Amino acid sequence: MSMRVVVIGAVALGPKAASRCKRLAPDAAIVLVDQAERISYGGCGIPYYVSGEVDRLEELLATPYGTVRDAGFFRTHKGVIALTRTRATAIDRTAKTVTIENLSSGEISILPYDKLVLATGSSPNRIPVPGVELAGIRPVTTPEDAEAVRKDVEDGRVANAVVIGGGFIGLEMAVALGDMWGIPTSVVELTDHILPGFLSPTLARMAAKDLRDNGVKVYAPEKVTRFEGAGGRVTAVVTDKRTLPADLVVMAAGIRPNSELAESAGLALTEHGLIIVDEHMRTSDPDIYAGGDCVSVPNLVTGKPGWFPLGSMANRQGRVIGTNLAGGDAVFAGAVGAWGIKLFGQNCAGAGLTIETALREGFDAGNVHVEQIDRAHFYSEKNMIALEMVVDKPSRRVLGIQGMCADGGSLTARIDAVAPLLSRRVTTDDISTLEVLYSPPFAAAMDIVNVAGNVAENILEGRLKPMTQEEFEKLWEERDKNEVFFMDARVERDAAPLAEKYPGLWHSIPQDQIAGRLKEIPTDRPVVLICNTGLRSFEAQMVLAAAGRTNTRSVFGGLSGARRLGVEI
Amino acid sequence: MSMRVVVIGAVALGPKAASRCKRLAPDAAIVLVDQAERISYGGCGIPYYVSGEVDRLEELLATPYGTVRDAGFFRTHKGVIALTRTRATAIDRTAKTVTIENLSSGEISILPYDKLVLATGSSPNRIPVPGVELAGIRPVTTPEDAEAVRKDVEDGRVANAVVIGGGFIGLEMAVALGDMWGIPTSVVELTDHILPGFLSPTLARMAAKDLRDNGVKVYAPEKVTRFEGAGGRVTAVVTDKRTLPADLVVMAAGIRPNSELAESAGLALTEHGLIIVDEHMRTSDPDIYAGGDCVSVPNLVTGKPGWFPLGSMANRQGRVIGTNLAGGDAVFAGAVGAWGIKLFGQNCAGAGLTIETALREGFDAGNVHVEQIDRAHFYSEKNMIALEMVVDKPSRRVLGIQGMCADGGSLTARIDAVAPLLSRRVTTDDISTLEVLYSPPFAAAMDIVNVAGNVAENILEGRLKPMTQEEFEKLWEERDKNEVFFMDARVERDAAPLAEKYPGLWHSIPQDQIAGRLKEIPTDRPVVLICNTGLRSFEAQMVLAAAGRTNTRSVFGGLSGARRLGVEI
Repeated sequence: MSMRVVVIGAVALGPKAASRCKRLAPDAAIVLVDQAERISYGGCGIPYYVSGEVDRLEELLATPYGTVRDAGFFRTHKGVIALTRTRATAIDRTAKTVTIENLSSGEISILPYDKLVLATGSSPNRIPVPGVELAGIRPVTTPEDAEAVRKDVEDGRVANAVVIGGGFIGLEMAVALGDMWGIPTSVVELTDHILPGFLSPTLARMAAKDLRDNGVKVYAPEKVTRFEGAGGRVTAVVTDKRTLPADLVVMAAGIRPNSELAESAGLALTEHGLIIVDEHMRTSDPDIYAGGDCVSVPNLVTGKPGWFPLGSMANRQGRVIGTNLAGGDAVFAGAVGAWGIKLFGQNCAGAGLTIETALREGFDAGNVHVEQIDRAHFYSEKNMIALEMVVDKPSRRVLGIQGMCADGGSLTARIDAVAPLLSRRVTTDDISTLEVLYSPPFAAAMDIVNVAGNVAENILEGRLKPMTQEEFEKLWEERDKNEVFFMDARVERDAAPLAEKYPGLWHSIPQDQIAGRLKEIPTDRPVVLICNTGLRSFEAQMVLAAAGRTNTRSVFGGLSGARRLGVEI
Repeated sequence: MSMRVVVIGAVALGPKAASRCKRLAPDAAIVLVDQAERISYGGCGIPYYVSGEVDRLEELLATPYGTVRDAGFFRTHKGVIALTRTRATAIDRTAKTVTIENLSSGEISILPYDKLVLATGSSPNRIPVPGVELAGIRPVTTPEDAEAVRKDVEDGRVANAVVIGGGFIGLEMAVALGDMWGIPTSVVELTDHILPGFLSPTLARMAAKDLRDNGVKVYAPEKVTRFEGAGGRVTAVVTDKRTLPADLVVMAAGIRPNSELAESAGLALTEHGLIIVDEHMRTSDPDIYAGGDCVSVPNLVTGKPGWFPLGSMANRQGRVIGTNLAGGDAVFAGAVGAWGIKLFGQNCAGAGLTIETALREGFDAGNVHVEQIDRAHFYSEKNMIALEMVVDKPSRRVLGIQGMCADGGSLTARIDAVAPLLSRRVTTDDISTLEVLYSPPFAAAMDIVNVAGNVAENILEGRLKPMTQEEFEKLWEERDKNEVFFMDARVERDAAPLAEKYPGLWHSIPQDQIAGRLKEIPTDRPVVLICNTGLRSFEAQMVLAAAGRTNTRSVFGGLSGARRLGVEI
């Protein structure tokens, strides 16, 4: 008898695992079960459908060649039976059966299995505050959500929108509503900054500036306390600090794994309710596999159980499960969490730990912030990249990298060059000599990735004594009260405008003139060195150190970083 | 007494090593020696100056902030003495001195050193054929070359240009002359195809098509036999196959290391005349370092001595040398050779071995060619990427990756994700699950990098039986003489135009209809399966294999690859 495989969940991982298994084991009888009518859709594309960049919803439901991936498609193209509008209600591991309910007819039936796959995904959180049941408050995770939101927007029913949650979906939705439809939109984030866990506070502020500059208001940290409504429809979001008018509230306050079925069946879960799997993506029952948003896989930076609810994980894990179902021996070792997001003028991306998560995980971590042009500096088209690298100071191991750039491809290249190395325990030395490709239209001969390694090394060896942009901002704001000597190490013509604007406060002493102008630089006051990116201020620091002057700090990312952050200068 | 350092050569590596050393060891007395007047320039930018994308030559000679890096700059900004128009003529390793000649005054003097750095670079080859001394025939490696060529072009003195050599500089110059100035330009390459050693024959033909489509003629393999001239100026290039009119001939027929000085001093060289250095970039004399175009460093794919004459190497190696001069312990382990080039509509890039170099090195190598969209397929802006991955079949180790895409950033990201892994002995399995970032505007959930790993695995396990584009082209050209059954596995509406154009020759049998139309597919003739990218033709092959049909081959990269190659169909 041929092997019977049941796959519960048919959005991303389920169809991938089923198709791969069928391709390798054509005799297998595979049944995909999903409670929704629409299956196998690109959920990550929903914000782009809402924005209108994706014209028709069908594009998210179709193959690259335009065939909608419905039950008929899976039957004829993949040889897989898809039962839609069918809910799996129980697993009997002894009998090896799944109880399913046809949501249209109410009919209950029993599916026997030899191997079972749990691809149950995740569900959006609904915050437990008064009024959350009002119409107009919704997550945007299904095609139905997407349709409803876009229709409301197209029909002009949304004068003001509020997004609850500054994570990926929340920000993508804010950009979709603000950029493409011009709807006044606010993002309310409970934690200290947007993209918590993914960006440092500094980069998060820089990202928030891009949102604000383009009309999206960002409130963080701020807590939603209730929703107000009229006629059963939301009219406002009330936070602990203000009331925001809203006809549409996007609920993007995180997700939780759908692991109730696994729990009822007695499978091992983590304390956070994630299904535990081994490197073959097998649960505590060797005949049951699981993957995607509902499982924990190792975080390859920390070595601890991790959670990476991303579409790319679902696809790669799905293929591993499909191979193993068919008798293969494929392994998914874990992940470091590589991600990206397009905002308005800027894009952000990263991998591994941020400075905050690294410290929380107990690393003795530090981070460097560098700014550099993404191509040869003489090349005509170019953009400034901001890059942060997080390092374990005692071992010099690189724990994470995050960045921001107007050019998405340039940023992706830098993050992707480092992401696969994070699990391989590379050090700052490896990054200093990391071989990324060079050609003037694509990269610099000493690329920003290498520079991040160099800067980290200079700090670890005590040569570079840096100051963060926030530290600089605070000292600059308090310039009338403190004794800080702000010294601009750029060439005179570049420093002149600020020196003229702030006479007696902003001192132009180009790096190459320091030796002859030592007397102008005080020894009894803190000296803050700044240039355009942080390179010449470092050189200035070295020159001053050689002259016995150690009362200096060099500003990370210089004035380029200050502009990105919005320091008022 | 402070340490005396002499650095011979002041283009890329020399200044970097000198500046880094001075920064770490401020007391060091460092002298840079170079025979040219102009030093520390971005030689890789010369084609972009010729094209006009870089407006003024000074931009190649200046820092990102616009200060020209001349002797004065090195003195005041870096604390380094630069002796320009000064030739090092001999090294006395016993006395630890360098003899130098002032090229302006003819004065000879002796420089003592504690540590010496050889950054003597490379020189362009001049092919030894009659007429090579004619005016108008020149390499373009120095600012003076660049000025002369651009002036000739600007003044309208170049009606026809010929580039000798289809390597990086040759092609960049051809693009500069053809794209920006509209000058009829031909490239004559001695070997079988352009970018030999960097692209497979297939990708090289695809790159050549981009050149031809934009008016640059490519002749390869073709040998220059002599130059014709009038009044001492070149008028034509004569090859073994034709005569090409030419007012400008760019000599880009490779380079040779400038290692005469090292050789005279008795330092160890490779059989190819490259200076041998250890991982600290020290020559066979521990007080003499060398780096850049004139040295051999390990090829980290083959483990053998390699040669990587690239500006990025010079910068990274220069920093390592600077650190070690100052008493540090920095290491440069070697390289895999990551490169990129912008053509007209397309960009090419790669790292590691090509299928040709891998076979030449004795690997039992194979390569896969995949085509896929660079972003989520539903995202509006997107481009098709072609990617080749070279694999050692017995060990499944990945030996190299090369690709082509209209979007340079997208291509760079894929190459840079894999390049740093090539020295870390990763396998196709590692590439299948490689964690590159995912977000619809930047990448696909199952990214083309992962797909390359998947396809390699499918071939190695005997599931996918591929056919190269060239094999397909040949069979298609001979379709009237052979018995091949060409089967289009795409959906009917996509296959219809070709099926109608070639009735009885081009068979439209969509992948999902195969099971019911088995009788239409012959068992006694070779069946060539094709689709748009190679994915559905693979699925078709699996369906047919399950039905006992093994007389099939699936075309790598499908019709997308065929269009790239220019197959007439």
